[in-house]
Amino acid sequence: MNTTLPAPFRGIVPPMVTPLSGPDELDVEGLERVVEHIIAGGVHGLFILGTTGEGPSLSYKLRMELIERVCRQVAGRVAVLVGITDTSFSESVDLAHYAHDEGADAVVLAAPYYFPARQEDLLRYIQHIAAELPLPIFLYNMPSHTKLAFEVELIKQAIQIPNVVGLKDSSGQFVYFQSVQLAVAQRPDFTLLVGPEEMLAATVLLGSHGGVPGGANLFPRLYVELWEAATAGDLETTRRLHAQTIRISTKLYCVGNYGTGITKAIKAALSCLGVCGTTMAEPFQALDAAEQARVRKVLDELASFEPEICAVKLR
Amino acid sequence: MNTTLPAPFRGIVPPMVTPLSGPDELDVEGLERVVEHIIAGGVHGLFILGTTGEGPSLSYKLRMELIERVCRQVAGRVAVLVGITDTSFSESVDLAHYAHDEGADAVVLAAPYYFPARQEDLLRYIQHIAAELPLPIFLYNMPSHTKLAFEVELIKQAIQIPNVVGLKDSSGQFVYFQSVQLAVAQRPDFTLLVGPEEMLAATVLLGSHGGVPGGANLFPRLYVELWEAATAGDLETTRRLHAQTIRISTKLYCVGNYGTGITKAIKAALSCLGVCGTTMAEPFQALDAAEQARVRKVLDELASFEPEICAVKLR
Amino acid sequence: MNTTLPAPFRGIVPPMVTPLSGPDELDVEGLERVVEHIIAGGVHGLFILGTTGEGPSLSYKLRMELIERVCRQVAGRVAVLVGITDTSFSESVDLAHYAHDEGADAVVLAAPYYFPARQEDLLRYIQHIAAELPLPIFLYNMPSHTKLAFEVELIKQAIQIPNVVGLKDSSGQFVYFQSVQLAVAQRPDFTLLVGPEEMLAATVLLGSHGGVPGGANLFPRLYVELWEAATAGDLETTRRLHAQTIRISTKLYCVGNYGTGITKAIKAALSCLGVCGTTMAEPFQALDAAEQARVRKVLDELASFEPEICAVKLR
Amino acid sequence: MNTTLPAPFRGIVPPMVTPLSGPDELDVEGLERVVEHIIAGGVHGLFILGTTGEGPSLSYKLRMELIERVCRQVAGRVAVLVGITDTSFSESVDLAHYAHDEGADAVVLAAPYYFPARQEDLLRYIQHIAAELPLPIFLYNMPSHTKLAFEVELIKQAIQIPNVVGLKDSSGQFVYFQSVQLAVAQRPDFTLLVGPEEMLAATVLLGSHGGVPGGANLFPRLYVELWEAATAGDLETTRRLHAQTIRISTKLYCVGNYGTGITKAIKAALSCLGVCGTTMAEPFQALDAAEQARVRKVLDELASFEPEICAVKLR
Repeated sequence: MNTTLPAPFRGIVPPMVTPLSGPDELDVEGLERVVEHIIAGGVHGLFILGTTGEGPSLSYKLRMELIERVCRQVAGRVAVLVGITDTSFSESVDLAHYAHDEGADAVVLAAPYYFPARQEDLLRYIQHIAAELPLPIFLYNMPSHTKLAFEVELIKQAIQIPNVVGLKDSSGQFVYFQSVQLAVAQRPDFTLLVGPEEMLAATVLLGSHGGVPGGANLFPRLYVELWEAATAGDLETTRRLHAQTIRISTKLYCVGNYGTGITKAIKAALSCLGVCGTTMAEPFQALDAAEQARVRKVLDELASFEPEICAVKLR
Repeated sequence: MNTTLPAPFRGIVPPMVTPLSGPDELDVEGLERVVEHIIAGGVHGLFILGTTGEGPSLSYKLRMELIERVCRQVAGRVAVLVGITDTSFSESVDLAHYAHDEGADAVVLAAPYYFPARQEDLLRYIQHIAAELPLPIFLYNMPSHTKLAFEVELIKQAIQIPNVVGLKDSSGQFVYFQSVQLAVAQRPDFTLLVGPEEMLAATVLLGSHGGVPGGANLFPRLYVELWEAATAGDLETTRRLHAQTIRISTKLYCVGNYGTGITKAIKAALSCLGVCGTTMAEPFQALDAAEQARVRKVLDELASFEPEICAVKLR
Repeated sequence: MNTTLPAPFRGIVPPMVTPLSGPDELDVEGLERVVEHIIAGGVHGLFILGTTGEGPSLSYKLRMELIERVCRQVAGRVAVLVGITDTSFSESVDLAHYAHDEGADAVVLAAPYYFPARQEDLLRYIQHIAAELPLPIFLYNMPSHTKLAFEVELIKQAIQIPNVVGLKDSSGQFVYFQSVQLAVAQRPDFTLLVGPEEMLAATVLLGSHGGVPGGANLFPRLYVELWEAATAGDLETTRRLHAQTIRISTKLYCVGNYGTGITKAIKAALSCLGVCGTTMAEPFQALDAAEQARVRKVLDELASFEPEICAVKLR
Repeated sequence: MNTTLPAPFRGIVPPMVTPLSGPDELDVEGLERVVEHIIAGGVHGLFILGTTGEGPSLSYKLRMELIERVCRQVAGRVAVLVGITDTSFSESVDLAHYAHDEGADAVVLAAPYYFPARQEDLLRYIQHIAAELPLPIFLYNMPSHTKLAFEVELIKQAIQIPNVVGLKDSSGQFVYFQSVQLAVAQRPDFTLLVGPEEMLAATVLLGSHGGVPGGANLFPRLYVELWEAATAGDLETTRRLHAQTIRISTKLYCVGNYGTGITKAIKAALSCLGVCGTTMAEPFQALDAAEQARVRKVLDELASFEPEICAVKLR
């Protein structure tokens, strides 16, 4: 419903997986359950069609169906952010207009990811596209997938564009993140979110606004409570919950150790919970039976550490 | 007109630039002139919507318009190969069917280029998509842009797929190319084309079938004659024309030294010839005036070496 | 004097620059001043012949002279750690014995850095060399320079070697560091130090033991106080001093933006303080006059934020 | 005996393996046999202490012993080139003087390989060190191991240094090699040698001077005859022998598929021939028994294609 986002926007914004019943077919019932499962965890927003959401692998038809259904179901309970990254300028703009019309609250834009461009190309691209987008824009730094980072100097320029309201940094480069935070310090309304959930505790302790943890598809409350503890400066709780995020990272995500291993493992775990199925979009396949069994075992192990927020009633 | 390609397919297949009158608008008259300019040089095929053709940067609407116009204009005079590479399986398949229906002769498929996949994912992806494609397929090895190479072992598997008929290798890895050539030696009908025009002479001398030289947008006859000389084992002519391709590479393509520097420079040079304009698709911009002047000067210099086939009547 | 290091070893261990009066000649007086300047800041150890110390660029003769002079001058006031990384196994072993005989307390060992080895080669190498080294060993993860990371699985094996007592991680990979911390949690005596000073606050807040900050050559007290605040959980002081380390990183180290930009800038700043000269070992050169002037200006700016611990009485 | 090398220096210069009886102990008898085995193949020079020679892994003592023994044994029959690459300027200079005094004919110098330097640093380094070296210098482009390429612009500057007489390019970048060849065309006395043996045929066909093929430790005559055929423009013989080099590359070198897989496999094969043992310097290990058996089988297979020059009388 196109709400006005707080500035800065604080909290946990899970990058939602896209439940599929076929390689390019939406699992409508699974989608409804995923949305409710995540919102029930107290999150502050939903980011759809990102990397964890397999956005670039889906047809435009499916992307539009997803936007429409999620916006309708969320119905303003939390903010909806929509990934519009594409190699084609026009397709990104069209998708953003569609998202706006369906009621989304912001768009998320990584670098166009086929051609290796330069910083000056990228800045001009952002300036051009921002002028045509009907919603606030979060820049999305994702060099492992786009081959191109938003360097600190570019960020300094980009924050002068009126509808560029934040940065989601998934580079995993801690020093870069701290440099950006210093560089945007004069713009206290500019939102700084971290991608890798293993960096959530540290970056929030040092003053940033929140994160986009993939694991929050599974254990939304864990990341919400971690964010609350770090925001409040409760170091003991922060350390304890942070340790759990590292366990999830090193034990769960390494099952099926590939490019989208994280998404495969999260879908596998969600299927253990009865939330949605394991189907992946091309070019990936779901974890196999042995890996799936391993996921189930890891879930048990994880539950033993934080039974309140990570205990999963396995189907 | 969906001709049957020779197997192997030998010769020069320029990766055609896409003339634009706006960032996502086709320059129809420029397109007609480019097609005729290239065909007049004696080439053996046209490859549209590749990297030089800025395929991934164009909207689907424009891509379809381009396919339709090129197929109609070429009208079977040479083979038309259509790039269908995409991060979305469904969009690739749809584009291939469109190309088939418009009369194209083959499709060209690189790895899906957002997620970093593994070889086994990539092989399965090729197997799945090949089963749905209505045309012969050239695999397109382009790791600098897709982050993922078709390794030799994968090629050995992929050549067993009936409609996988060839490989265009743009990796620039000479050792890899030779390894592939040995690996496919038992399949004399399998086509092996090289991307980087600087490798055309050497690879054809050593027995491969041809190339996809970007410079053939500008000087089609140069690359055709080089291919003929190397195919015939005329070492003296081969060396002389090869030296000219290295001059083009080191003098022309370095004007505007970026990710798509080659396409920028080729469009700039074509504009000096009055063939088409310099407009680039986002996220790139045409060379600036100083660079454009430099291109004009380089063209004069290049013409002085091979006046017959590189003399350009500048507008 | 070969003291027994505490286990774990906590605190700040600056990677000392090597003052030079010529490309391969020690500046003996500068060396004495640097050592005293750093120790006066309250640090817990000195790491010589590391990356900041330009160790690999120095002749063995100079390395030995440095070891001997530093050990003699420090005289047990703080621990002395000596870098012995080399591409030649024998040379590393010889240097370690020399360090032992001169009274050093530990050696620091990165991967041999010419050949790209595999994890299993690296583990066997560590096992072999550890058996011949007369001192405790800190592993030194430095993939940007060695092309080879100590992966978490290797660390799990390496901590079983009796004289492997700690890890200095200079990868800048925050997620990796947290994964290692979890992996060695069952060995509370194992020391975990972070290289990049921009990560010192965060890693200590989350439970690691200290750091090896290059900037502590210049402002030793800043990093000592930051470490103390983070260790004590004083979040407000930690954030304030952390912000200063990011200022140093983004303003000072970018003057002369190259491979050893940090060392060049630190030597330039130390020369402003009258501690030592700016001479670099080959293949590098000192900052030029304009860059040197810029360093002086940055120092003023830095002093304005933390006048107590970063005010520098410029010569 | 410090002969004057022809300019350009044409032919085959095998990068000799270093036979070892322990990780840092020379196998003196093996060494004598390797030298005679290679010279008997008709090669034009010997390159010791390169990458295949495991130079950087050996102690200085061993390197000096090797230089002395090889120079004495070769006794002017072919040119001896000595690798002096090091991270320490002084150690490189000292080794070069030693090589000169023992009678070597030239030195080979790659970039110092610890610190990631810039082109301007590297050029200045070459200028400085060339002034102190008593022998002609071949630059050695080896970015996979040194992290730093000699870019074409640097080569254009470096050829102006009087004792820089040639380039050995082991980058595997064919386009780069052709660009260098064009850039140095005005210096017909400047020697251009290619490292990867898979590129020998193509580069010599296109006018360069020779190569430094690792496989010539094993089958020196194969590479000599290939070089002769390509130099003479005998395309049929060139193609036939080239195919054999690709077989060697894809069948033999992949046994033990690691960083120094090539050296391991060559030593394993030489041991099948009774020339020398399989011992590797740290951090590597010889192929294991299963791999060694595989090498023996591959040798049989290779001999079946070129029985005259690749038949090996196995011990």
